[in-house]
Amino acid sequence: MSENVLLIECKDEKGLISRATGVLYDSDCNIISNGEFVDRERNRFFMRTEFSGDFQKEKLQSKFEKALPDDSIIRIADKEKKKIVIMATKEHHCLAELLYRYVYKELNASVVAVISNYDKLKPLADNFKIPFVHVSHDGISRSEHEDAVCKALNAYDFDYIILAKYMRILSPEFVMKYRNKILNIHHSFLPAFIGANPYRQAYERGVKIIGATAHFVNENLDAGPIISQSVIPVNHADSADEMCRAGRDVERLVLANALNLVLEDRVFVNGGKTVIFN
Amino acid sequence: MSENVLLIECKDEKGLISRATGVLYDSDCNIISNGEFVDRERNRFFMRTEFSGDFQKEKLQSKFEKALPDDSIIRIADKEKKKIVIMATKEHHCLAELLYRYVYKELNASVVAVISNYDKLKPLADNFKIPFVHVSHDGISRSEHEDAVCKALNAYDFDYIILAKYMRILSPEFVMKYRNKILNIHHSFLPAFIGANPYRQAYERGVKIIGATAHFVNENLDAGPIISQSVIPVNHADSADEMCRAGRDVERLVLANALNLVLEDRVFVNGGKTVIFN
Amino acid sequence: MSENVLLIECKDEKGLISRATGVLYDSDCNIISNGEFVDRERNRFFMRTEFSGDFQKEKLQSKFEKALPDDSIIRIADKEKKKIVIMATKEHHCLAELLYRYVYKELNASVVAVISNYDKLKPLADNFKIPFVHVSHDGISRSEHEDAVCKALNAYDFDYIILAKYMRILSPEFVMKYRNKILNIHHSFLPAFIGANPYRQAYERGVKIIGATAHFVNENLDAGPIISQSVIPVNHADSADEMCRAGRDVERLVLANALNLVLEDRVFVNGGKTVIFN
Amino acid sequence: MSENVLLIECKDEKGLISRATGVLYDSDCNIISNGEFVDRERNRFFMRTEFSGDFQKEKLQSKFEKALPDDSIIRIADKEKKKIVIMATKEHHCLAELLYRYVYKELNASVVAVISNYDKLKPLADNFKIPFVHVSHDGISRSEHEDAVCKALNAYDFDYIILAKYMRILSPEFVMKYRNKILNIHHSFLPAFIGANPYRQAYERGVKIIGATAHFVNENLDAGPIISQSVIPVNHADSADEMCRAGRDVERLVLANALNLVLEDRVFVNGGKTVIFN
Repeated sequence: MSENVLLIECKDEKGLISRATGVLYDSDCNIISNGEFVDRERNRFFMRTEFSGDFQKEKLQSKFEKALPDDSIIRIADKEKKKIVIMATKEHHCLAELLYRYVYKELNASVVAVISNYDKLKPLADNFKIPFVHVSHDGISRSEHEDAVCKALNAYDFDYIILAKYMRILSPEFVMKYRNKILNIHHSFLPAFIGANPYRQAYERGVKIIGATAHFVNENLDAGPIISQSVIPVNHADSADEMCRAGRDVERLVLANALNLVLEDRVFVNGGKTVIFN
Repeated sequence: MSENVLLIECKDEKGLISRATGVLYDSDCNIISNGEFVDRERNRFFMRTEFSGDFQKEKLQSKFEKALPDDSIIRIADKEKKKIVIMATKEHHCLAELLYRYVYKELNASVVAVISNYDKLKPLADNFKIPFVHVSHDGISRSEHEDAVCKALNAYDFDYIILAKYMRILSPEFVMKYRNKILNIHHSFLPAFIGANPYRQAYERGVKIIGATAHFVNENLDAGPIISQSVIPVNHADSADEMCRAGRDVERLVLANALNLVLEDRVFVNGGKTVIFN
Repeated sequence: MSENVLLIECKDEKGLISRATGVLYDSDCNIISNGEFVDRERNRFFMRTEFSGDFQKEKLQSKFEKALPDDSIIRIADKEKKKIVIMATKEHHCLAELLYRYVYKELNASVVAVISNYDKLKPLADNFKIPFVHVSHDGISRSEHEDAVCKALNAYDFDYIILAKYMRILSPEFVMKYRNKILNIHHSFLPAFIGANPYRQAYERGVKIIGATAHFVNENLDAGPIISQSVIPVNHADSADEMCRAGRDVERLVLANALNLVLEDRVFVNGGKTVIFN
Repeated sequence: MSENVLLIECKDEKGLISRATGVLYDSDCNIISNGEFVDRERNRFFMRTEFSGDFQKEKLQSKFEKALPDDSIIRIADKEKKKIVIMATKEHHCLAELLYRYVYKELNASVVAVISNYDKLKPLADNFKIPFVHVSHDGISRSEHEDAVCKALNAYDFDYIILAKYMRILSPEFVMKYRNKILNIHHSFLPAFIGANPYRQAYERGVKIIGATAHFVNENLDAGPIISQSVIPVNHADSADEMCRAGRDVERLVLANALNLVLEDRVFVNGGKTVIFN
């Protein structure tokens, strides 16, 4: 994706598409693809436009600001690769999937560090030559641990934090600091099976389908805006462990898919939900 | 399915398959297909066998009883078509699906009656020449209404009650009378969105997949053993109404599929779950 | 869908979206949703816009014609329901699905007639009170039969012909007469298993997934632009007949889905392919 | 899977399950799970049984041979891990998936070597510490190259050859040497798009779903017995390159899934098809 991306969000009114695309036309830019959505309940307008052309970014931004309503949030996305920090605990599959994609240039981001509350995954990060920071939670309080994690994070410049099976609940205070910047993979088809041991819960309930959910983290457990979900069939003969094993393939693909959507600036947060252009 | 079906459920122990299939072999019966499952947590053995052969049913039954443990539940399924009563409220799609399949001989059952708390669907039942009994809940208590429904049911000989979008909650007392004999279609991917208005709930939550669940009804709302589930993708542009509309196609197929499994004696209830041989 | 729909197709060039949406803005119309696509290989631009507003159709059309390139195909879709003729042979499931949807107001069209080369499905059409025309192919040549079908068709005013398991191959001459106006459901995941008996072919090949394909009919057998496809898993234990039975549910939903897309003016034909806005 | 696996294939006749399970019962073995299938067209019986118990393998084998028809193929699977050689060309994703699973103990096999006609993937194999053998096809005939590959293979003891995007067609002579021992991943939903560039073919045809197929290799191109297939939706906006990229995730999971089925002795070859117990 070497094109420029324009992102607009504002209160809905007549003529927004015409005005926004008019600015691009006047600036001799060519639209490659365009998506827009109006949330009628909230009366919000969202637009994402891929375009090509020679332009001076500040000038174009200011033209859009003049053409569009005052309350508009207008962003011409940087063409530089975004930077991510990955947080994990002991399970390797999601971390490995992201590092693998990073190394093979299938991830539109730079992985700047891996932070974990255990050191078990250090060899994996080492193998891919990614800095690994072990921030143990051993013998300290939750808030002390979060302070230590923040300190570790502060050593890096990053756009998103990816929780690749990071198995600790983050406090609302921590989450607030990185509003709409933390992605999590939850190993169930949310809102089914919130909380611990979703595969065990799924097994106990006897469901015939299990899934995984990638979402932004907000202050309520497993309640943030959903980005991507996927499912696979199971049956009575599958134990909780077998569901867990089968679920790993779903988890890593759902997380990678959601991350790609975010990295390509395809995701708007709209209240407790997402608007996704793809 | 013109074959005979043998159903066995008992405490697990060694040699059960050998003993059961031995009885068939000694009786000069031929196994067409055989499925078995051991629930190791509950230590229960389940087996379903399709077989052909000339046999005297009582004699064969008694041979199995001798060969298998005392606590075994052994059933040689009747080859007669099962009979069902369908209960509905105002939505036609699930009722129409079942009646359509019945009329076109795609349902392995006889539909003996439709019971509804409204008269809106009477023309649909009439069209397919099925007795329609209107049992209004207007101006009477829940238990009075359920008594009236029972009276209506008692006029018919039936094996299963199918709730084809019957939109009233049944009391535990009612459910107990027809233990594991009532099938329901719930318009969500249970256990997500229990209760009223699941599509509205799904819309509010911003899920990316919606579904439907067919289950046996037990004394807890939407908590009975699940028989079948299916899902479809949705996105931010789908309103609750559009999800509802799209969901109808999932609901009717999931219900029809679950009903076929039950009618072909493929479903065992195992505690709060099902074991399904297909 | 009570909104107006604008459809534009032309050679791609800069500013098309801006110009088209500008016309709507100037005409005091409000865009509800907008989709566009550029086929870069063929250098073609496609746009579909739902909009509301008070306007005089001929005037608006002429404004678009002035604003857009000369070769543009511009259409403001009629808000009247489209009319369809359904052609079938002996299988009822696709015909019944469409008639059922029509009667329950889930199809955005009027069914004006059913034409069949057998009379087997007459009771079904009668049941839904739709004119049924039996055009037997018995003892006449293919071209004589097609002439008779054309005569039957000419008695009706219609927008699309839906082949709901019409099991005769149509000649290129016939197809040419109704270019991009004939929809067919093929009982395989095209281009796999072109021609007769696709379920038998699928069984013989031992595939693990089967499907159905709805497409516009063109002069080459099963080679027209694909509108919609769907699949279901099968396994070694499924006979060709069982695949056929399971496939029926896929066929009728794929056909209904494709038809809805066409009726809502969401489908452009682009060479041998389709562009679909949904 | 730490259980023993019994595999039986023979002409169908009465009493086979009873006789086979009777041997296990007499030998004081306990059946964990049992699957059987009769291909009525070919009159073949297939059975796979997981069982536990203390037994002397040769003795048990001989008991089965006595109990079952003369032509029976009876195998008590070795509990040792199977050994595989992976062949690849330039694409890393399937190779990486298998090596990753091997290293993380999610593959029930030992990877003994990687053989490639290019040296591009050597660093990947090195990274996982797997012997990499470069057998260039440069400047030699197909049969000379295959001889060189055979020589390379002969240096290893292996059970299966996995073609993880090995982009050269193998001669019937080569295939015959390793009958039912070579697994391939084809990047289409076979039998659609046989041969080269299936994603380009899919793009040209305008399909709405693409897929991947894992199959045993036989002497006809892309015509061997299918083990596993999976699909994903695509649309008019996806270029052939984007289909190719999206397809990679399907390919690697389908291949890994098929390989696991084979490694767990769940797959019988039945003429040109497979019988799979899972």
